[in-house]
Amino acid sequence: MYKAKAYSAASATSPLAADTIQRRNPTDRDVQIEILFCGVCHSDLHYSRDEWHAIMPAVYPCVPGHEIVGRVTNVGSGVTKFKQGDRVGVGCLVDSDHTCPNCRAGLEQFCPNQVLTYGSPDRHKTAAVTYGGYSESVVVDEGFVLHIPANLNLSAAAPLLCAGITTYSPMRHWGVTEGKKVGVVGLGGLGHMGVKFAHAFGAHTVVFTTSPNKKDDALRLGADEVVVSRNADEMQKHAGSFDFILDCVAAEHDINAYINLLTRDGNITLVGAPDKPLPVSAFGLIMGRRSLSGSPIGSIAETQEMLNFCGEHNITSDVEVIPIQKINEAYARMIKQDVKYRFSIDMASLKSE
Amino acid sequence: MYKAKAYSAASATSPLAADTIQRRNPTDRDVQIEILFCGVCHSDLHYSRDEWHAIMPAVYPCVPGHEIVGRVTNVGSGVTKFKQGDRVGVGCLVDSDHTCPNCRAGLEQFCPNQVLTYGSPDRHKTAAVTYGGYSESVVVDEGFVLHIPANLNLSAAAPLLCAGITTYSPMRHWGVTEGKKVGVVGLGGLGHMGVKFAHAFGAHTVVFTTSPNKKDDALRLGADEVVVSRNADEMQKHAGSFDFILDCVAAEHDINAYINLLTRDGNITLVGAPDKPLPVSAFGLIMGRRSLSGSPIGSIAETQEMLNFCGEHNITSDVEVIPIQKINEAYARMIKQDVKYRFSIDMASLKSE
Repeated sequence: MYKAKAYSAASATSPLAADTIQRRNPTDRDVQIEILFCGVCHSDLHYSRDEWHAIMPAVYPCVPGHEIVGRVTNVGSGVTKFKQGDRVGVGCLVDSDHTCPNCRAGLEQFCPNQVLTYGSPDRHKTAAVTYGGYSESVVVDEGFVLHIPANLNLSAAAPLLCAGITTYSPMRHWGVTEGKKVGVVGLGGLGHMGVKFAHAFGAHTVVFTTSPNKKDDALRLGADEVVVSRNADEMQKHAGSFDFILDCVAAEHDINAYINLLTRDGNITLVGAPDKPLPVSAFGLIMGRRSLSGSPIGSIAETQEMLNFCGEHNITSDVEVIPIQKINEAYARMIKQDVKYRFSIDMASLKSE
Repeated sequence: MYKAKAYSAASATSPLAADTIQRRNPTDRDVQIEILFCGVCHSDLHYSRDEWHAIMPAVYPCVPGHEIVGRVTNVGSGVTKFKQGDRVGVGCLVDSDHTCPNCRAGLEQFCPNQVLTYGSPDRHKTAAVTYGGYSESVVVDEGFVLHIPANLNLSAAAPLLCAGITTYSPMRHWGVTEGKKVGVVGLGGLGHMGVKFAHAFGAHTVVFTTSPNKKDDALRLGADEVVVSRNADEMQKHAGSFDFILDCVAAEHDINAYINLLTRDGNITLVGAPDKPLPVSAFGLIMGRRSLSGSPIGSIAETQEMLNFCGEHNITSDVEVIPIQKINEAYARMIKQDVKYRFSIDMASLKSE
């Protein structure tokens, strides 16, 4: 084991602060990574404040961060896919059981025994739970490490590891292609990636927003149209016309208004998770054989596919780079949606701690 | 035009009573049918009492009935698929626009200009709206008439035209086949057909019911297992295991309890339509990439496919045959769920009116 600098929360009510954690020395299968940037996901805030206690109680100290990019500093003797100096990424998963039906189907994001990048019991017993990317380094099984295409800016590529795959995966799953009409609800960290992907897939892309002042930005990101969702007339014009809608809103909102915009067999997928149940009218689903679904991240293979796609289409996240010392302020701003569109922590800032 | 005996409601608060209506003389494309039996669907009650006013305001007099079986008495000169004496059926649709994308896809159940068997504006101007199957005869375009296999009992085949296709279609659409695990929620007119089809498709069929005393009947109908849905422990044993669930419950119920029983990529389809929105938890959908959808009836082609399947597997509805004079009593009993599992009106009873 070795010591690594990190930022951690000591309790649900503590701000994040400088800390020193243990990392394991690389095993034969491990890749040791110097973390250069780590994106800031809303999940980081939820987990560090124990807001998901019922589903996943937080263990402290907690080191968040699952949008990790960096450079390989060392590899185990059995590692074949990576070498020192490679530009790599790590997302929400660092291990799974490899034996369940989901793992065998290559869909380890659904493995019941998956090991999350932070907050899961640590199988290597380096600590009680896994520690995430708000740290100077991390050691990960090569099967859960991704290659980052050479042309992508690393600070802006970091959010691809969660926000990117979370929006890419359901669009692929539900068949978003050229000629389809696709809606993206909510223009935040997830939504702005959804717009970039839908546009890159060749879909006619419509952004729904409650903020008319986001219109120019939506068009810049690749939207063909912008609809202010509070305007019932504007919404009605699109009734029954969407093949797919990606719903990125984690706050309460009227899902039926969007279900009614779907065409026959259209699908709306939730990637934001509102705390309270959404009231869903059965008629809207029955009348067009429409469906409402949800989607988490993607598999490791699909995450690599997404990164390669981003390389080919030069897609990254719009980020505001911050030093780790501003993380608590960034959390406060994230709650106010005061970020365009994702914070990315420059981990070089940790050296001064 | 000619006169035909029928039972109609004169207003939302009137009981159904004997009446005389106009039917058109068959055009070149029409099939004239002597109605022998008509199933009683909950929609008949909703419509005749104007309970769907917001979606489809009732026009009076109203003649319900869209589970029609009978015998061909006359055909137009251009009719090629039917001849006098044929055993035929008519379901919920008697026409569509034939030009919209849904019609061109062979899915006229989604045509925005579809003509329902009762209550739709009558294109032939015989009356203000179309009149349904609580009548001694009906005249229908041959494109919307179905063949009834020779081995099926007509009184028990009538409900196939709505309850049958409504449960068959979503199971086919969502891929219910041998080896799948399928749930049916609610053992009523729709649910008991769902059980028969799931069993005939070779699926492992589980019935969910709030009434433990329905267990024996569920097993008789083809269920492999019966789960009392109020028993949380029993429900928990099935967590994450269903490929498909058909939800036939029109009353309020906890849909999330069923979503949590779905496996990865599992689907639950609503065919009952509760009045009030169902609260849906996003997490249940996100965690297994599960989906919630709805389904109306099926296309004409699929309805014929379903009837042929019923012929091959000797599937009909469990019916209680009543004379038309008992229709108001049957409505009262239907509300109390006091029917196993569908009323079928013997239209010979209309001759005495």
